[in-house]
Amino acid sequence: MRMKQITIAGAGTLGSQIAWQAAFCGFEVTVFDVFEEGIERGKKFHESHADHFIKERNASPEEVEKTKARLSYTTNLEDAIKDADLLNESVPEKLEIKKSFYRDVSKLAPKKTIFTTNSSTLIPSQIAEAVDRPDKFLALHFANGIWDSNIGEVMGHPGTDPEIFKQVEEFAKAIGMVPIPIHKEQNGYVFNSLLVPFLNAAIDLVAREVSDPESIDKTWMIGNRSQLGPCAFIDIIGMETAYNVNQMWGEQLQDDHRLALAAYIKENFIDKGKMGVSSGEGFYSYPNPSYKDPGFLIK
Amino acid sequence: MRMKQITIAGAGTLGSQIAWQAAFCGFEVTVFDVFEEGIERGKKFHESHADHFIKERNASPEEVEKTKARLSYTTNLEDAIKDADLLNESVPEKLEIKKSFYRDVSKLAPKKTIFTTNSSTLIPSQIAEAVDRPDKFLALHFANGIWDSNIGEVMGHPGTDPEIFKQVEEFAKAIGMVPIPIHKEQNGYVFNSLLVPFLNAAIDLVAREVSDPESIDKTWMIGNRSQLGPCAFIDIIGMETAYNVNQMWGEQLQDDHRLALAAYIKENFIDKGKMGVSSGEGFYSYPNPSYKDPGFLIK
Repeated sequence: MRMKQITIAGAGTLGSQIAWQAAFCGFEVTVFDVFEEGIERGKKFHESHADHFIKERNASPEEVEKTKARLSYTTNLEDAIKDADLLNESVPEKLEIKKSFYRDVSKLAPKKTIFTTNSSTLIPSQIAEAVDRPDKFLALHFANGIWDSNIGEVMGHPGTDPEIFKQVEEFAKAIGMVPIPIHKEQNGYVFNSLLVPFLNAAIDLVAREVSDPESIDKTWMIGNRSQLGPCAFIDIIGMETAYNVNQMWGEQLQDDHRLALAAYIKENFIDKGKMGVSSGEGFYSYPNPSYKDPGFLIK
Repeated sequence: MRMKQITIAGAGTLGSQIAWQAAFCGFEVTVFDVFEEGIERGKKFHESHADHFIKERNASPEEVEKTKARLSYTTNLEDAIKDADLLNESVPEKLEIKKSFYRDVSKLAPKKTIFTTNSSTLIPSQIAEAVDRPDKFLALHFANGIWDSNIGEVMGHPGTDPEIFKQVEEFAKAIGMVPIPIHKEQNGYVFNSLLVPFLNAAIDLVAREVSDPESIDKTWMIGNRSQLGPCAFIDIIGMETAYNVNQMWGEQLQDDHRLALAAYIKENFIDKGKMGVSSGEGFYSYPNPSYKDPGFLIK
């Protein structure tokens, strides 16, 4: 199957990135959001992506114009989905909202449409019962900043058709992602399964005053031959996410250690307005964090 | 204090690297080992470091000759330590062996000598009682492959003199390491505190067949902007170490999950002679593992 027509549901940070990237790669993309304000926000994101692509990603003005021409926007789900080969959904991360969305879209989508969820915390099995075509339903999950972190994690549920799984891998490739096949359902997929214990180890070292963020990041950057240490990484994903992940799983698993890490982040960062890169301060100060200094690793 | 004379106790893999590096950086280095065979092994390591420095680290034949001239070897501890400004100890990783070594060397070393341990699994407090100068005793810990992973983790115990701590940081810098100050005793220091949960998360994903080593490493290399994924890292440190860490802590903490990871490594790798880079096979095949292919991240 040669895909052409893509529907992106949810015009937030990540949905807008995916829509832009798919359009840039030649797909016809319809962006759906329930709210008119959502659509307006999505259009603003796309203006800034256009700038970014010209200034920092060597895109020509013609390429950017063609990308814009391939994007359309609607708050009408029936219009949005009517000719879609593939849907990628980034609606709010609540099970009931997702299920309700899939019940609606199941009624409206043509038979050919493959449904993919970009959910980070839910696994496909939890949603599949709300879908009319479970064999064509699976996760295609992106990491924030999809141009630098260009992974597309592909994860089915036991009822997903293997042929559809392959088609979604191909689609991920076609929009410039490296497809990461996941063969069993896994909370956190691959990346967050590695990232969360790693970042928590770093928060723990800082919270217990064993070492400081700069020393911790240096250690990792040298030892793992990496451009990004854990404290810098937390600043990028934001203190709110670092807090939420630990608070949510801490409560769910009654894990006092995770709750303590969440409390540390709240007290020392969130309560002081230090939200990470987005607020200009976290473990580092932005826009020029010390870890990007050329001499950082030899000081 | 300007240091000049260094004693390296233990001529194994890491001790020999540290001795070579200190001599290369201009220090007079005495290598001590209890056994004549240990000394012979250390000399062989130094021959191969000489080759390595000329072929891969742009060292001139003159520099290498000077380095060799600064190295001497002895099985006599009294000779080894008699004029040392600093001792770095990499004797076998058993508390009783370490303590016994420090009792001996305490009697023989001049007052000026700073004692540093390269122990990975013991913390300075566990050893300090065997030392006659606890204020001049602390850890200076190196990572294997000290030329690429040039970190020197510095960790005292509550009785360490802060001035001595600083001098050891300076020494680490003087031999080309990035000093990582650690302000509270921490099993695993900084690097292994980050590394172990991260590597275990990867082993867990492979063992449960959630994903495959190549996909896991790709995900990390892209997402953490790193040249080294966790499975490649395990191959480098070796399956035996990956097994030992999990088996030891699994027993100590009665942690079934770690014991299961250890069992997985034993059954699937060690029992089959796949020890990692050292045996030519682990998660990858060597000397040309696929993760080093230029196209690895875009396949």
